[in-house]
Amino acid sequence: MMKTLRTIHAEDLEDIAIGGAILGTGGGGDPYVGKLMAQEAIRKHGPVKLVDVDELPDDALVVPVCMMGAPTVMTEKLPQGDELMNAFRQLEKVLGRKIDAVLCGEAGGINSTTPFVVAAASGLPLVDGDGMGRAYPELQMETFTLHGVSATPMVLCDDKGNSLVLETVSNGWTERLARAATVEMGGSALLAFYPMSGEVAKKAVVRGTLSLCVNLGRTLRETRTAHADPVAAITRLLGASIIFHGRVKDVDRRTIGGFARGSARFDGLDDWKGHGFRLDFQNEFLMAERDGKIICTTPDLITLLEAETGAPVTADSLRYGLRLVALAFPCNPQWQTPAGIALVGPRYFGYDTDYKPYAFT
Amino acid sequence: MMKTLRTIHAEDLEDIAIGGAILGTGGGGDPYVGKLMAQEAIRKHGPVKLVDVDELPDDALVVPVCMMGAPTVMTEKLPQGDELMNAFRQLEKVLGRKIDAVLCGEAGGINSTTPFVVAAASGLPLVDGDGMGRAYPELQMETFTLHGVSATPMVLCDDKGNSLVLETVSNGWTERLARAATVEMGGSALLAFYPMSGEVAKKAVVRGTLSLCVNLGRTLRETRTAHADPVAAITRLLGASIIFHGRVKDVDRRTIGGFARGSARFDGLDDWKGHGFRLDFQNEFLMAERDGKIICTTPDLITLLEAETGAPVTADSLRYGLRLVALAFPCNPQWQTPAGIALVGPRYFGYDTDYKPYAFT
Repeated sequence: MMKTLRTIHAEDLEDIAIGGAILGTGGGGDPYVGKLMAQEAIRKHGPVKLVDVDELPDDALVVPVCMMGAPTVMTEKLPQGDELMNAFRQLEKVLGRKIDAVLCGEAGGINSTTPFVVAAASGLPLVDGDGMGRAYPELQMETFTLHGVSATPMVLCDDKGNSLVLETVSNGWTERLARAATVEMGGSALLAFYPMSGEVAKKAVVRGTLSLCVNLGRTLRETRTAHADPVAAITRLLGASIIFHGRVKDVDRRTIGGFARGSARFDGLDDWKGHGFRLDFQNEFLMAERDGKIICTTPDLITLLEAETGAPVTADSLRYGLRLVALAFPCNPQWQTPAGIALVGPRYFGYDTDYKPYAFT
Repeated sequence: MMKTLRTIHAEDLEDIAIGGAILGTGGGGDPYVGKLMAQEAIRKHGPVKLVDVDELPDDALVVPVCMMGAPTVMTEKLPQGDELMNAFRQLEKVLGRKIDAVLCGEAGGINSTTPFVVAAASGLPLVDGDGMGRAYPELQMETFTLHGVSATPMVLCDDKGNSLVLETVSNGWTERLARAATVEMGGSALLAFYPMSGEVAKKAVVRGTLSLCVNLGRTLRETRTAHADPVAAITRLLGASIIFHGRVKDVDRRTIGGFARGSARFDGLDDWKGHGFRLDFQNEFLMAERDGKIICTTPDLITLLEAETGAPVTADSLRYGLRLVALAFPCNPQWQTPAGIALVGPRYFGYDTDYKPYAFT
């Protein structure tokens, strides 16, 4: 029997969704949709037991679940929780054994909440952690990949009742084939993938990220109630640095190959008056420049908060005049390895610069 | 034990490929590639037993195999026979039982020969027939669909080692998802689909089409050797009508959504002097107009033969000055039902005209 770290009730999902949006670094999809699905599942099936990854027996079978596709589509075409359970149960059939615990593939954005749907409906424990410690746009961008875990067999389901089981030669191929299917399925799909043992999960998982989401959401809520400074509280909790405070001057946005690409420029306020700031995004915020100099890039995390409320702001909702604070905070050390940098470093995303860890002070 | 109708040796594949090109009605892919694969498999594993569909026990499991994708890609990226066997064996695993016989999904074009690869390698009998009696561009366009057979579970394999198992809510969805995967896989894929019982196969199969391919190829070869008229011989064998004889005047060709669409215009020769002819194609020849009047449409078959040699000519190889004879011949009666017309009639392909069976005389 695994020891429960924390029991998650329907109302906790509010905090988790906010925390997921902060770790979403501007992308990752709207946690609102996943929150609704998870709350409904918990109300129907009961609360979710969050467990530490070390609680897993080495021979346990652990499976991440997530939603794939364009965030805008997900909001318009609200998925049923059933499709996630379909993917999960079908993967059990393919593997020929019961799954012992649910895992989160991506703690940033919508997928911070989707695993709660499956954990509630299956009654299985959910591991406190994920495979990114943030949000990224492609399926192979998981710390699991760095540990040689295959993304397949993977099951992908849509809202109409179609499903596919993928077996691929690499996680890059999984991304390509699953992406093509998702587009054809109408822009969003639900999936169960990266089946792994408890032993591997202990090495590969980015730990504690779901608890971090809870704490981020709660901190934001409590400091607001106490009329304290929410931005300062979030900054402390993340071990982050404030890298800019300013007003959005212009946003250049285009949709290329299903990604929201672009950049936003800011004029400084207060301490940053007279300084300029630019943020490049491809779904997520991936590179920050201050006064024309690159100061922080992926895999380190860059997030935007409303200066007054501390509410996280996505790349989608950037618009002229918003007063925002930009935070940088350190990525999981697994991303700083050569293999990690190859998978999610700035050059993978087409930026002609090497990754230099931001000097968090 | 099923009675063998005809034993197919490697050299017979020459005739079958020619016959497949005639039934390919201008499309269906180059049978040359499939012929090479099938000949190699037969040389390695021994000849293929062709059986009448009535030989199948009602509870037999019968599975069609085929190649999907752009014909030009297939020629440049020669598939290995192994990928077809992979799809076939993987479908056996999904279904949890051994397959008893191999079926041809499409007797026109490249897929007239690909089932011989699997029949040779597996040692299983091959049913003399197919699911079209011709070539069509989409997966759901099978007489099997008219009998309520699901195209899934379907296994799709590529040359790199990737595979996917599809389960869909309709054969139209199978087409969409398999098409997207095939494009992503580099433009061609190998698949096993439409698993059915012997009982259903007896109703659904277009009978005798592989024997017809053998006979068409042999007839062409023998009339040439005998310096007889190959076009006349083929016309007789097909129960076809010569609907035009002329020279290609111009060809309008564009590739839209992976299809080679266009039309060719002809000036009449001999008896047709002074008359005009136009052929519309979407991979296959789908509509023929003479002197501005539609005279034959899909699902009836329209094929082009070189006037002198009787060799079949594809839409791809149409060019100015070629002297050709156009034949029309009757489709399988299953296509003439309302459901058949809905699936493959002229309106499905965007032509604003109803199907009227050509009056074959």
